[in-house]
Amino acid sequence: YLVAIGKADIDLRTIGQLPGILDIHRVSDEYKLVSRKWRVRPTVLDLGDGVRIGEGSLSIMAGPCSIESEAQMEKIMQHLVDNDVRIMRGGVFKPRSSPYSFRGLGMDGLKLFHQMARARGIKIITEVMQVSQVEEMHDYVDVFQVGARNTQNFNLLDALGGVDKPVLIKRGISGTLEELLSSAEYVFSGGNEKLILCERGIRTFETASRNTLDLNAVPILKEKTHLPVIVDPSHGIGIRDYVAPMALAGVMAGADGIVYEAHEKPEEAASDGAQTLNFAESARLVRNLRRVYALRQELE
Amino acid sequence: YLVAIGKADIDLRTIGQLPGILDIHRVSDEYKLVSRKWRVRPTVLDLGDGVRIGEGSLSIMAGPCSIESEAQMEKIMQHLVDNDVRIMRGGVFKPRSSPYSFRGLGMDGLKLFHQMARARGIKIITEVMQVSQVEEMHDYVDVFQVGARNTQNFNLLDALGGVDKPVLIKRGISGTLEELLSSAEYVFSGGNEKLILCERGIRTFETASRNTLDLNAVPILKEKTHLPVIVDPSHGIGIRDYVAPMALAGVMAGADGIVYEAHEKPEEAASDGAQTLNFAESARLVRNLRRVYALRQELE
Amino acid sequence: YLVAIGKADIDLRTIGQLPGILDIHRVSDEYKLVSRKWRVRPTVLDLGDGVRIGEGSLSIMAGPCSIESEAQMEKIMQHLVDNDVRIMRGGVFKPRSSPYSFRGLGMDGLKLFHQMARARGIKIITEVMQVSQVEEMHDYVDVFQVGARNTQNFNLLDALGGVDKPVLIKRGISGTLEELLSSAEYVFSGGNEKLILCERGIRTFETASRNTLDLNAVPILKEKTHLPVIVDPSHGIGIRDYVAPMALAGVMAGADGIVYEAHEKPEEAASDGAQTLNFAESARLVRNLRRVYALRQELE
Amino acid sequence: YLVAIGKADIDLRTIGQLPGILDIHRVSDEYKLVSRKWRVRPTVLDLGDGVRIGEGSLSIMAGPCSIESEAQMEKIMQHLVDNDVRIMRGGVFKPRSSPYSFRGLGMDGLKLFHQMARARGIKIITEVMQVSQVEEMHDYVDVFQVGARNTQNFNLLDALGGVDKPVLIKRGISGTLEELLSSAEYVFSGGNEKLILCERGIRTFETASRNTLDLNAVPILKEKTHLPVIVDPSHGIGIRDYVAPMALAGVMAGADGIVYEAHEKPEEAASDGAQTLNFAESARLVRNLRRVYALRQELE
Repeated sequence: YLVAIGKADIDLRTIGQLPGILDIHRVSDEYKLVSRKWRVRPTVLDLGDGVRIGEGSLSIMAGPCSIESEAQMEKIMQHLVDNDVRIMRGGVFKPRSSPYSFRGLGMDGLKLFHQMARARGIKIITEVMQVSQVEEMHDYVDVFQVGARNTQNFNLLDALGGVDKPVLIKRGISGTLEELLSSAEYVFSGGNEKLILCERGIRTFETASRNTLDLNAVPILKEKTHLPVIVDPSHGIGIRDYVAPMALAGVMAGADGIVYEAHEKPEEAASDGAQTLNFAESARLVRNLRRVYALRQELE
Repeated sequence: YLVAIGKADIDLRTIGQLPGILDIHRVSDEYKLVSRKWRVRPTVLDLGDGVRIGEGSLSIMAGPCSIESEAQMEKIMQHLVDNDVRIMRGGVFKPRSSPYSFRGLGMDGLKLFHQMARARGIKIITEVMQVSQVEEMHDYVDVFQVGARNTQNFNLLDALGGVDKPVLIKRGISGTLEELLSSAEYVFSGGNEKLILCERGIRTFETASRNTLDLNAVPILKEKTHLPVIVDPSHGIGIRDYVAPMALAGVMAGADGIVYEAHEKPEEAASDGAQTLNFAESARLVRNLRRVYALRQELE
Repeated sequence: YLVAIGKADIDLRTIGQLPGILDIHRVSDEYKLVSRKWRVRPTVLDLGDGVRIGEGSLSIMAGPCSIESEAQMEKIMQHLVDNDVRIMRGGVFKPRSSPYSFRGLGMDGLKLFHQMARARGIKIITEVMQVSQVEEMHDYVDVFQVGARNTQNFNLLDALGGVDKPVLIKRGISGTLEELLSSAEYVFSGGNEKLILCERGIRTFETASRNTLDLNAVPILKEKTHLPVIVDPSHGIGIRDYVAPMALAGVMAGADGIVYEAHEKPEEAASDGAQTLNFAESARLVRNLRRVYALRQELE
Repeated sequence: YLVAIGKADIDLRTIGQLPGILDIHRVSDEYKLVSRKWRVRPTVLDLGDGVRIGEGSLSIMAGPCSIESEAQMEKIMQHLVDNDVRIMRGGVFKPRSSPYSFRGLGMDGLKLFHQMARARGIKIITEVMQVSQVEEMHDYVDVFQVGARNTQNFNLLDALGGVDKPVLIKRGISGTLEELLSSAEYVFSGGNEKLILCERGIRTFETASRNTLDLNAVPILKEKTHLPVIVDPSHGIGIRDYVAPMALAGVMAGADGIVYEAHEKPEEAASDGAQTLNFAESARLVRNLRRVYALRQELE
């Protein structure tokens, strides 16, 4: 794309007549390419094997905070297959705020994750944390996830602008929606249009929950951009009992999908156990999410 | 009630044997009487004529920010009757952050409001702003509303502890859920158990919406207290187009009701026009709210 | 005053020629009377007996959170006299967030407070919490304090607009500086120009301190308004060891005075002990405050 | 170091008798090595040529947001030399929130910056944005700066744990002080003890300033850690007129130094002009900072 920036009044026709110009748009937002003013039709991403993200389908992504072992993956994948959930989340490189915590299985874990997922028709979303990982992870992921601490890691965003895989960008922990859209613009302007935005809770004064899941973000983003919007209630509210109601509310607010943490035995998970659903809770949530989504489609 | 406070270990049986003691509870929260640990069964308020607030029904409260004239009330009441909405909101004393703004019609307006509502079987909720108004407003309201700026006006809470009318307490604009529960405790400990809590948006760093409607409050409050929980999406998000999706999401998150602003011509409203629905939007919202509530009742 | 509001372009000369018009100002802020655009010279309040608040002097106000007893007051007043501190703070009506806490000595306490202070040449600042108290407290206070929970209690502000005593308005716990100025405007437009603004800490995500004392407010308010600006480090940071450095920093940022909590035995205070200085700390702070203020006067 | 973590009660003597053990400390904070409980004496960093950072000296760091050209550097360096400021700040890789903004001169700019600074006895602090830059920048910087968007970029912190140059870590825009200390712990536990912490403003609801410079951080950090604490008023408050009072207040609150933006013609700066001082303002600030620091040393 050519994105022309300027304050001057320009006669668009003088540009439109240049050779090689297919289309011209005048956009006044700070973010231009991801704005609905530029592209009115919602973006739908096709992951293959009938798995789509965006308008027209409800994307459910579930899995543990971190990949821990083959046995753990075996169990969670069977749970996903049983409930027809087609996308699995799971971290292999874990950003930890203390230097003394578990840091993930790394590339070996990812390769095993990929091999097991392929065998079961499951797509993978996992977090990329730095530029050097983009290339090595590329062949083993279906969706790159940019975490809340990297929403404004512009070097990473630049690198992801050059790949042909979808990228889910989480809102920063104190990031405005404008900033989230601007981060998406970074990747989009680099050439990668396969983007997904994710609301995952912001930091406020309230301490009754881990974060404040900001569902206002859903209708606001859906109006401002053509990109799919996903809600992460697990990190968003951070307390197991409240994950399901907030997930259902997120779909009713207009989300295109939900990503949540599930584990065979949450109390034994290497991380995030307090916000992770067990399989019975997860299966019930999936059934309810689909009923809520079906109703939303019917509403006037 | 006798609320005994202390750190010492007490043998409850020594108290239970005293004359006049019906029941004893040990509660560790700062708020005691409004806690589910004290009373497990949800509180349901009966406003008469079949209008109830709490578990088992969805309360819809609609109306203008401010009562402006007889003609205005006539129109909105007809709209409510047409849509079987039984509770009307509308301010008569308006708290305004600038000394140069419209301040409401006062007691004369309230008396007319009451007379017109009674004639149509409509219940009234309106804001009380100071102690001296409690008595003069008493006979003309069905539910007293305590606004977000008065959530911690303890003199007002004390006064409302002595009346026999329901009180809806809005969360402070930067109030924690603990503080909201503690304010309810104030009124409850004064003798008035007819309480309703209302989430109406908090102040955060985000500027894309007027406030950040915090739907996390719904499941958290529903677990911590036996009181009904209402959501106010109009003040919560403050932008007309987003009121309906946030209202629907609020019900899906578990709210017992929704209070929102509606006006025949929002653009001509004396206040809050930017967040007010017109009658067509309002009617559609009411229909959708009832479908969402019906589904919620069916979910596992 | 006549405050004229409108968007139309008006020829000021047509107004200036009307009888009874002394002066005309065009002000574009939401707050008009308290703006420096209206009055360039800083407001200085004279409490009598040589006690002034505003440009040209450093006002130190100290005392306990709450007045507790004659003996307590005797000791703190002696401490103030010994250190030439001329203004004593102390609550008689305490706003408490739990209904089960100490609520203050009330009017009897205030009368004793006043009698003892007068005998020692000490001026009194204490909090007024509701409209009905304005008249009964009037003769016993030198400065009315409006607490952080009442910054937008417009009925109270209206009532204080009609008295001839100075009013110190604390910033709301989540109040913007615009809102604080607008609250001052309320009182000023009611006829009472004797106003003082007070920064006392805001609510943020940070939990290492009770509140976040926002010293940015000092230079911003000093530029926007002609009113004196006071800093309350005790409530602002809420931890005893940090009160002194923040008080000194507040003066260096440009504050016209400091109000802080002191008590003979902080650990025995009925309230706020954790943020209260003992007499040795208080005396040292007073000496240091005066040195910092003296240096500030000398800086270029 | 060996940092042993565990909940069990351990008899320290059994460890102390092992070969190779010099000293043992029991620390209960999440951050251990940077805590004052582990090392009581304040850390002082020696940059050579008599330039020190930490207790006993006031570090002044000034310069433009971004290095723009040789001519620009020539002028600012002359200004620094004239005012005996020994450390120059200036970005060569700029993190920009929009993909369409100036991104800095890169390594060529840094090499020129280094050469010119060496010739004048000036030390350099500049931001490193990703792991791959650590090695290439190493020989040309005196202090690595970790920006507010990278405070929790743990890969970058790991890399900086392995170098022998000082690292200044800025607090995240919504980072708690605990998180800042934990980030320092990351680098320290990697082997690099040469750390400096920097308060640079947090994100709150207030919009009167760009950020809310949180001077409370200064006394809190000085008590919790042995590391030097620097204040950045330029980014902290973000408005030119308020930079100087906040800088002076920061020193009075206990800061070991100030970093601020200065430019010959702020209005022509490639970035951050609105918060940048011109040379006259900068020179006056330096003189005043030294007087305030001198007084602070004298206070009881």
